[in-house]
Amino acid sequence: MKTLVVLSGGMDSTAALAQAKENGHEVIGAVHFQYGSKHNKQELAAVKAVTEFFDVPLKVVDLPFINDLFKSDLLQSGGEIPEGHYEDQSMKRTVVPFRNGIMLAIAAGLAESLGGEMVTIGNHIGDHAIYPDCREEFIKPMFEAIERGTYARIKIWSPFMHKTKAEIAKIGSELDVPFKLTWSCYKGGKVHCGKCGTCVERIEAFAKAGVKDPTVYEVKS
Amino acid sequence: MKTLVVLSGGMDSTAALAQAKENGHEVIGAVHFQYGSKHNKQELAAVKAVTEFFDVPLKVVDLPFINDLFKSDLLQSGGEIPEGHYEDQSMKRTVVPFRNGIMLAIAAGLAESLGGEMVTIGNHIGDHAIYPDCREEFIKPMFEAIERGTYARIKIWSPFMHKTKAEIAKIGSELDVPFKLTWSCYKGGKVHCGKCGTCVERIEAFAKAGVKDPTVYEVKS
Repeated sequence: MKTLVVLSGGMDSTAALAQAKENGHEVIGAVHFQYGSKHNKQELAAVKAVTEFFDVPLKVVDLPFINDLFKSDLLQSGGEIPEGHYEDQSMKRTVVPFRNGIMLAIAAGLAESLGGEMVTIGNHIGDHAIYPDCREEFIKPMFEAIERGTYARIKIWSPFMHKTKAEIAKIGSELDVPFKLTWSCYKGGKVHCGKCGTCVERIEAFAKAGVKDPTVYEVKS
Repeated sequence: MKTLVVLSGGMDSTAALAQAKENGHEVIGAVHFQYGSKHNKQELAAVKAVTEFFDVPLKVVDLPFINDLFKSDLLQSGGEIPEGHYEDQSMKRTVVPFRNGIMLAIAAGLAESLGGEMVTIGNHIGDHAIYPDCREEFIKPMFEAIERGTYARIKIWSPFMHKTKAEIAKIGSELDVPFKLTWSCYKGGKVHCGKCGTCVERIEAFAKAGVKDPTVYEVKS
């Protein structure tokens, strides 16, 4: 199937791109959203490096209204990024309301415009704790809405819906995913901070998978 | 319920705003999308006039990537607007892929950020012929996706889902909707062209409803 991959520049969506290729899908492009997160520059550099590595056309979509109008500590307009575990309730402050719904809807319209048949997204089981728009109970009706709301009956493919991030690290390692090019840290510094929820989750994932972590961390707790 | 109204500046969404007020909902704002259509200036002027009339805060969201990346004759980057009936197959060229899905997703996230509980949308039965993302088979799963994908369990309210545009003209007239402030014409000239699909549909709606049409048309066929 001709697929457009939603690419944040993190390890999950990068592994999803590799998995799409592995499964024989034709990756017609990657779409990346710049919505005013604190780590948007690092994400942009990551998606550029990743799409160059995989030789995939990149479409960057700017959504400045999210930073201007939405409330979340993930945004430049929000408060400080909390430290701690990714699944902690404090991380709720970093949720951008319905972000995945917005990204999937735009990706669906873009996929239809590009002659695609499918949108690939890299959400995983660990996201479910705090992100309502990563859960299967959201993805299933969203899949239906997109399929019924497009002429091309665009599909959503979520290869890691039932996988943990450690499993993604393992799968990605087997697929030679260039994890060193990817970016997770919400703080958006020069290197990964090692303390915010996403850094803690990234460190744990590589450790549990028994895969070498190529990331440079400011502090590795 | 606290509702955010998706407002295009046309007669349907303006009547939906009035209907929300009539039904006792608290209209916390209107959100308008500028996505590079040929009639975006006229729509913007209309939403400003309409929200001023109803004394409702207006949020304008720019989506320039749609004109840049999507394919549709409705867009400035597309071909000429076809003339004829709104439900003609030629009007398919004016469909912007998954536009309603995108607008609803963004409105849902914005409603959650603003402390709202509901998004009101003015789609109607006549839209169903050519817009897959106006049909009930789309709205129902989209409703579920939005409810499940937001913390506030945001609802979608579509008061005219089973109404014709003539019925909207009739209902709007009874609610004293200022139709003269609204804009429909896809061509985006100084006055309504009277020949494009939306103009023909507008003219027919007022005629069938037996309601005085306050619109100035270049040609009234």
